[in-house]
Amino acid sequence: MMVTVSDLGEYALIERVENFIQLRQLEYRPEIKLIAGIGDDAAAWQVSGIQVTTTDSMVEDVHFRRSTFSYFDIGWKSWVTNLSDIIAMGATPLGGLVTLGLPEDMLLEDFDSLYDGILSACKEYRTVVLGGDIVASRALFVSVTMIGSCEKTPILRSGAQIGDVIAVSGSLGDALGGLQLLEQGSAINTEASRRLIEKQRRPKVNVDFAQLSKILGIHAMMDLSDGLLIDLAKLAHSSGVATQIQASLVPISDELQKEFPLKAEEMALNGGEDYELLLVGAKNTLQDFVNRHPKAAIIGKVIEGERGSVTVFDASGFEMELSDLNWEHFK
Amino acid sequence: MMVTVSDLGEYALIERVENFIQLRQLEYRPEIKLIAGIGDDAAAWQVSGIQVTTTDSMVEDVHFRRSTFSYFDIGWKSWVTNLSDIIAMGATPLGGLVTLGLPEDMLLEDFDSLYDGILSACKEYRTVVLGGDIVASRALFVSVTMIGSCEKTPILRSGAQIGDVIAVSGSLGDALGGLQLLEQGSAINTEASRRLIEKQRRPKVNVDFAQLSKILGIHAMMDLSDGLLIDLAKLAHSSGVATQIQASLVPISDELQKEFPLKAEEMALNGGEDYELLLVGAKNTLQDFVNRHPKAAIIGKVIEGERGSVTVFDASGFEMELSDLNWEHFK
Repeated sequence: MMVTVSDLGEYALIERVENFIQLRQLEYRPEIKLIAGIGDDAAAWQVSGIQVTTTDSMVEDVHFRRSTFSYFDIGWKSWVTNLSDIIAMGATPLGGLVTLGLPEDMLLEDFDSLYDGILSACKEYRTVVLGGDIVASRALFVSVTMIGSCEKTPILRSGAQIGDVIAVSGSLGDALGGLQLLEQGSAINTEASRRLIEKQRRPKVNVDFAQLSKILGIHAMMDLSDGLLIDLAKLAHSSGVATQIQASLVPISDELQKEFPLKAEEMALNGGEDYELLLVGAKNTLQDFVNRHPKAAIIGKVIEGERGSVTVFDASGFEMELSDLNWEHFK
Repeated sequence: MMVTVSDLGEYALIERVENFIQLRQLEYRPEIKLIAGIGDDAAAWQVSGIQVTTTDSMVEDVHFRRSTFSYFDIGWKSWVTNLSDIIAMGATPLGGLVTLGLPEDMLLEDFDSLYDGILSACKEYRTVVLGGDIVASRALFVSVTMIGSCEKTPILRSGAQIGDVIAVSGSLGDALGGLQLLEQGSAINTEASRRLIEKQRRPKVNVDFAQLSKILGIHAMMDLSDGLLIDLAKLAHSSGVATQIQASLVPISDELQKEFPLKAEEMALNGGEDYELLLVGAKNTLQDFVNRHPKAAIIGKVIEGERGSVTVFDASGFEMELSDLNWEHFK
């Protein structure tokens, strides 16, 4: 007989999660110095410096479909999207709290896979589950609140200065490519398409980038979750500046080029969920960053002009039409 | 024409919330030293000592009904239930992150009332909204993750010692009384019933209790959210001890006694959501606490025996039947 989450009930599920967490935390040494973990009124830990926090949710049929994402994927991605926001402050992720909205008929084995995804991401990035809540919900959702710490001042979106250059930490558009392949539902039979889908379902982050707050000369930073053009416009708006970029400089992976030869550039400009960093700062600093990270590239500069504006030039130096820049893409 | 939240869309709603928050924060000085508030990848603040965090959600038709709770009530209570968990660690609440699950047809004016409830509780307790997320959801839900700080070691559930006495910080059962009056749907025409309903819909906490971690002699503490018997059993289980209490010593308000004369004692033992504190510690310390807080009372003691057990004696010294102690009350 198939056991569902409602067969167990809230208390037994929470106890199950507590056991999972305790077992998995024997496998690695987390960054955080815990005084009290899950199981009390609140978790408690020793801190130094500056704390940062963010929250992000994944909702069934909005951010994923159960037909194209495994439960492990859902858990993994929920955790990693939050890590990305912490790293984008130049802060080290410590741990997070997980609220699960579960359909009553969800199978216990699927619940276990979901938590396996969360705890595998925890281990990969030396973070911990600090607490959580479980509620009944028609649509499956995972809401994570992540906490991190930063020795120096965090890097905000608002620090871009006229004359700064703009860089990205890696190739863009891959996650959108993966999503389109999944939505088409066609047979996945190339290595390139498998890699794009992997980037959509199981994104990775680079925790070393959390150290960027120690480098002078990076003036503004954010993670690329909604798409380069939208996110750059947000950063420019926060900083009160205008920006221009060269479309041909935006890094595109061989995989995206191969699977979407005619649309790769547009996908790199507009596709979200790549969880690469958008960096703005002094030319020398970002040139040095790009030299040390071969997938990174300088793509444009900060200029005087209308607050929040983004102008895109093509390889021939012509200004591109931005009619597809849709701010309200979730509406 | 009535405007709904989906008429505005996610970005406009988030901007609306940011404006609300900025306006309201001009009205008071929060505890937290913010470096970056809402609007960046993450919020950032300066810390000292120990940090604590907790999360708790309220879901329509599980934790409240829209027919008996105003939107203001829902916002207020979501915030305060989380404050209560932070205070129960002996920590000062600083701020929280709010994830809202909104039905598409929710009216914008109701959204505003919901946030007014959250921000009114923020002001009352000098806390701030540090971030959030807005998602579409069939059932309305509010999920809050709260962060606090503690100068000394936080007070855990696990510190109760044999020989300790057990106290509660105020009268119990009122919130259950209020809930029953709301569910009965009868006309509310007495001052007593109005007060009970107020305790259910708009609970209050005492932030002074956050200082209890500075007092030696309080060994274990938690907030009473699920009901005295269940919560005491949890604390006893965490501490590896047994407990006994005297039912007649549990404080009952005049209002509960008046509205539920035959059931008041049972309601005080089993009713949840009072958000009073359960304190365990040295007799002198808790006697002193009770002397300074007239609504508080010593109700029992920690004994050797089966881990997690709670024995209740009636006024004649007879052991009471606990067949109504239902751990799986959410199932």
